[in-house]
Formats: sequence, C-alpha cells, structure tokens
Amino acid sequence: MKNNILVIGLGYVGLPLALSLSKYYNVYGFDKSIKRINDLKKGQDYNKETLKKEIKKSNIKLLSNEKDINNQINVFIVTVPTPVNIKNKPDIRNLISACKLISKKVKKDDLIIIESTVAPSTTENICLNLISNNSKIKKKDLNICFSPERINPGDKKNNLKNLNKIISGNSSKSIRLAKNIYEKIAKKVVIADSIMSAELAKITENAQRDLNISFMNELYKICDLYKLDYKHVLSLCKTKWNFIDFEPGLVGGHCVPVDPYYLIEDIKKKGLRSDVLVASRKVNENFVDYISKKIIKIIKNMKHTNMFFYGINFKDNVYDKRNSKYFLIFKNIKKVYSKKITLGDDIIFKKKIDLKKYNMMIIGSKHSETYKMINKFKGNKKSKKIIINIFGNLKLSSDKNLKVINI
Amino acid sequence: MKNNILVIGLGYVGLPLALSLSKYYNVYGFDKSIKRINDLKKGQDYNKETLKKEIKKSNIKLLSNEKDINNQINVFIVTVPTPVNIKNKPDIRNLISACKLISKKVKKDDLIIIESTVAPSTTENICLNLISNNSKIKKKDLNICFSPERINPGDKKNNLKNLNKIISGNSSKSIRLAKNIYEKIAKKVVIADSIMSAELAKITENAQRDLNISFMNELYKICDLYKLDYKHVLSLCKTKWNFIDFEPGLVGGHCVPVDPYYLIEDIKKKGLRSDVLVASRKVNENFVDYISKKIIKIIKNMKHTNMFFYGINFKDNVYDKRNSKYFLIFKNIKKVYSKKITLGDDIIFKKKIDLKKYNMMIIGSKHSETYKMINKFKGNKKSKKIIINIFGNLKLSSDKNLKVINI
Repeated sequence: MKNNILVIGLGYVGLPLALSLSKYYNVYGFDKSIKRINDLKKGQDYNKETLKKEIKKSNIKLLSNEKDINNQINVFIVTVPTPVNIKNKPDIRNLISACKLISKKVKKDDLIIIESTVAPSTTENICLNLISNNSKIKKKDLNICFSPERINPGDKKNNLKNLNKIISGNSSKSIRLAKNIYEKIAKKVVIADSIMSAELAKITENAQRDLNISFMNELYKICDLYKLDYKHVLSLCKTKWNFIDFEPGLVGGHCVPVDPYYLIEDIKKKGLRSDVLVASRKVNENFVDYISKKIIKIIKNMKHTNMFFYGINFKDNVYDKRNSKYFLIFKNIKKVYSKKITLGDDIIFKKKIDLKKYNMMIIGSKHSETYKMINKFKGNKKSKKIIINIFGNLKLSSDKNLKVINI
Repeated sequence: MKNNILVIGLGYVGLPLALSLSKYYNVYGFDKSIKRINDLKKGQDYNKETLKKEIKKSNIKLLSNEKDINNQINVFIVTVPTPVNIKNKPDIRNLISACKLISKKVKKDDLIIIESTVAPSTTENICLNLISNNSKIKKKDLNICFSPERINPGDKKNNLKNLNKIISGNSSKSIRLAKNIYEKIAKKVVIADSIMSAELAKITENAQRDLNISFMNELYKICDLYKLDYKHVLSLCKTKWNFIDFEPGLVGGHCVPVDPYYLIEDIKKKGLRSDVLVASRKVNENFVDYISKKIIKIIKNMKHTNMFFYGINFKDNVYDKRNSKYFLIFKNIKKVYSKKITLGDDIIFKKKIDLKKYNMMIIGSKHSETYKMINKFKGNKKSKKIIINIFGNLKLSSDKNLKVINI
C-alpha cells in the first residue's frame, strides 16, 4: 500500500520534507496559515529556501483547512515550530494543536512522527498521551516516532538528502515503518535506542553550538577590553591542531537560541541546573545590547549623521527576519536616534528612496544583495561616507571618500 | 655566532624543547629541582614522555645551581610552570624567579623568550619590566618574545616538530631572532601582531577545551537524571555533520583547568566577568564530587567490600599524577571507607601485595598497564568480583564471575 502522508507545518522543515516525500508517496501538506498555503500554491516560498519550479512541479496537496484532510492518511508528520515565549519558557501550543488535529484523523496502526524539537519525554508523555486519549485508540495500537529535524537554513550543502536521520520509536514496528520512509530521502538512517535519547541528542547538538558562540562573544568583549583585534587572536588560535573554528555572532532564528531553553526548563523542574547552558544563553542574549552600545558610541562621536541600517535577517544568507538580533540592534539605535535612522531593508521595497542621501550605512547580516546596496549608498559623488560593518564579514576597505569601521 | 641557549624549567615543556634545540645549538638546561637534574643526568624522565636514550645521547648541560650558568648565554627561554594556588588565583612565583635569574645573567641585545602561559600583558609589563629594572639594561636593548608552548602530554602525534609555533615580540628584531631558532624545530612559525594577542590566544585555546568538556559533564549529569546512556546520546549527536567530538572528563593536569583562571582573574581586575568561563570551571571542579558520590552510592549497596583504586594519573596515557582529579576521587571514597580501600597505584611498587584478595577494583585513568592489573585482580579463582569503570573507556564485559559497572 502506498503511504498517504500528511505533513503538518510547512515552514523551513516541513516544506522541503514534503517535497522530498512527494517523489515517493501521496503527500498532503497542512499549514494553519492560509497565506502560507496560498503563497505555496503560487510556488512562492518567502524564506527563499526552495525554488518556485520545485514547488510548482510537485504534486503535494496543500491544505489549510482541517476539513479538507483526507481520511486515507496513514502517516502524520509534525514539523511545527516549538518556540519560547517572551520569558524564554517553552511554548508547545503549535505541537498540542498538531496532536489534536492528528487525534481527529488517526486510525489504529497509523504512524505518527514528531520532527519538532521537544524536551525529553514529550513525544511519549505529551503527544502520545494526548492523541491516545482524544482518539480513544490504545497507545499500543499507535505507532509513534521521534525523528529530529536537522534543517540548517541557508545551507545548500547539508540539506535533507545529505543528512543522517535519527529515528526513535515506541516499538520496533514504529521504527521499521519510519525507517522505510526516511531511508528513501535521507543519506542514512540512524536508529536511537530510545525516544528520549533522540529528543535529548537534538537539543544537545544546538546547545553545543550556542555554547561555543557564547564563548566567542565573551572573547570579543575581552579583546575590546585589551584593545586587541579578535579576528587576529582567533587566527592565532586556529593554528593549533584542535582549536574549533567558531566566530562571535548574534544567535538568532528558531533553533540555536531556543532549543537550550527546552532542556534548561525541563531539568530545572527535576531539580538540576545547567550552569554552562544558562550562562551561554545569558551571554548570547546580552550580546545584542553590547554591540548596540558599541555602535551608538561610534555614532555619538560623529556630527550630522543620516543613517540607514541594512541587513536584519537572522543570519547571513537567509531571508528570514523572525527572531533576528540584528533587528533588535536597529531598534536599540532607533531608541537613541529616532529621526536619524531608517531601516534599509524596507528601502528595497520603496524604490524611490535615494540611498545616496545617507552618509552612514550600518551593515548587519550579509547576503548576495549587500554589495549592490553598498554601491547605491556610495553613489558617484565624492562626499565622505561611513560604513559600520558588524563583525566585518565583508571585503570592504576605506578610501578617501569612504571610512569603513569594522566592529 | 652559535646561540648559547638556557632553558629554564625542565618539565613537560622545557625538556623536549631543550632536546630539540640541542641538535642545533649549545643548550643549557636549568631546573631548580636537584632531583630532576640528577634524574635527567641518568636519562630518567619521571613523566615517561622522553626516552632514556634520547636524553642520554643529547649534549645538554644540565644545571640546578645558578652559579654554574655560563656567561656566554645569549638566549633565555622560560618554560616554568604557572599554576594556580589553592584559591585558584594565578601563582607566578616560578616565573618571577626565572626572570630574576635572567636579570643576573642577561646582557644587552640578548633574547628572552617566555613560553609559560601568562595573562595578557604579563610578558611586557611584568617580565620585561623586572628584567630591565634588575639588570639596569634599558628595555629597548632587550629582545623579549612570547611564544606559547603547545605541548600535549601523552600525545605522540602533536609533538614539537609537528606544531605550528606562535611567536610574538617587542620588536621586529626580537621576532626575527626567535623565528630563526624555532623554525629549525617546529613545523611552522606563525607571527602574531602583538605579544598580548599571543598571550590571549594561548589561554583561549585551553579555555575552549575546558568549556566543551564542562558541557559534556553537564550532559553526563542530565543523562543520569533522565536515566539515559550518555555514550549513546553522544553517538547520536555525532551523526550530525557539525557536532564536535568531546567526552565527559575529569579536567586535571597543569593546562586546561589552570589557564582559564589566568584570564578570569585578569579581566575581573578590569571589571569584566566571563560568565561562561566561570561556569565551566565551576562545573568541571564540582564534577569530581559528583562522580565520587555516584561511586560511593554503588559501594553502599554492596556488602563486604575490599576495594582498591587503580589509575590516578591526571589523564589517560600519561604518568603524571599532579593535579589529578582521579586522586581526589580516591580520597573522597577513602573518607567514607577508610579501611576498606587501598590505592592501587602504590601496589605496583609493593610487589608482594596480592591483588586477588580484593573483591572490587575501581578504575580511574587508563594506560597500557591497566589490563595487566585487571588480570591480576581477577586471578584464577572463581570468586565473584566487581569492577567500577569510570567513563567506561575500557573494553570490559561482565561474565559470571565478574560484574563490570560502567559509570
């Protein structure tokens, strides 16, 4: 029997997954956002991670109304976001909604796969419980798996087909069913010995990254303290055989700055505190203010500034602006210089605005259009202009009309 | 003119350095320990890092009395330990002694190289100042360099001749002089743009390692909390392309657990706190007690234990017992079971003691002799025995007479 798969949540994770699966199975894609579904029907991915023609040629049935969900579905895959709230507490409302939806449609022996990042034990103690209770199907008659997503936005190399995919499940049958599906689309399937191990492994991966960037951010501040060039210090460190190549950075987006809180909060309930993870999160959260203040200090020493800020995507080479720390930096500067700063990313959409009238450009995240914007900003006139280049990750040098300040 | 080089401090760093240099230069080796000098004269390195024949065949002049130091010395290399005291504050008394010694012997235009790990600015603000003041030679007439050591005890691959050697100095002349020396013995010479950058880079390298191990130690505790096998969780994480391969561990020895304090204390004086490094150190320091308690809990559930603890070297495959956390674990167990536990490492030297009389062996650090000791412990008799295998890094399996507990 050919699987009828419903992918719930068509964001970064769900869309490429649904597209891959649609080459082998009947795939239905559900997203509660009507706008997202309508965009996708036109082949448009606002994240620009997927090409229009790829979406267009696929035969995914796109749905945003529960009632349209086919009764033939036998595999449910949950790829909804699991964010944190304003107090950095896990917010699993999307996950709960997805499970409620599943419980209305699920039949005995169907397969449910959770790909969203969750705290250890969530798949069995929350998802399976809820689905079993609401559907009145016994737990043992439901096949549930946890298979953590490893999508890296903006990364063309480590995409789904080049990934090792971890699978864990509540029975060997569940694992076998999920394995049959994923081994068609992933590089390799790795079986975990328990669902909790897989849930913990996923968070551990991102927490390790958060931790290492937090140390680089501390090093950045230490180099400021000693008046040293952090890039040079790191270039020295990298000449050692086992130094790990990280850079300072504003940890934004939906994974790295979020996932550690799922673990921090869950172990806290059980009486354990993770000092290192708590410190890392704190350092990375506060780094936004540190960089903002550094920029404001530079601006203070200048006269007649008419600035625009360009690049508020959450990291280089992605188009997503959600949970972007660069946007927070823009807002922090705007608090002090409300009338003197414009958001450059908006300018793109207002073609009439003349970039040449600005005398300072502050560059946040970088992507393919950044150099084009710099050229528009510089213009042809020989007036003195300034660029503040955050983390200096662009090849730009000062000349007699342009002062480049790498911070 | 052939350089006459004095290496001050003949430990892990100084001995291999002096041996390498002695192939090209007249080398004098000074150590304040008369015992160390006498041992080396017999070709004996208690660290077992250097072969007897290599020491024997070298033509290093070994000295432990300042008065024997030749007046022809024109290059002074400082490789003394820079530890922390009981309160984890930097203790640079060895470094100060070495600088005082140098100031008695140094001449105008001589070269001084500091290899010992120091806080940023120490080389110029403490060492150069002291030597200049005491010797009455102007700073500009002294060539001083900082070239951080990167010796990794127990590591046969990343030895001196396979290392990239960082050189920084107070002038281009100093750098040139040091470069001429080090490029003969190191794989590659890397020039730093300032002494402080090199001083900071050295600490950063080890702090990064400390940090990553501290996270693994937290993960170890988290896995205990969730009753998961940390080795399995890590094996899952490692299937991701960018996960960094670290393991939980007791961070002992003279570098990784010490160097971060040099930075932590120095920036603290200047008003900056490194949250991540402070947390990492705390986690790693406390991990000894965590592991001790875990072992004591296991012992409590057993009757008639007659134990010995084997492997108190600070890490696997080294012979050095200084600053060993395994020794602290032994002491913690001994506090509770004073009459029931013996230090196995001492047994090696007391051949008469019969290992077969013990019914429990606790294994700390591992090295080539560990399996031999295990066999002696097991004996031929079919009595039930127990091994507690810390971090489980040995291939041991339980059988009907042996219970192996990997923790």
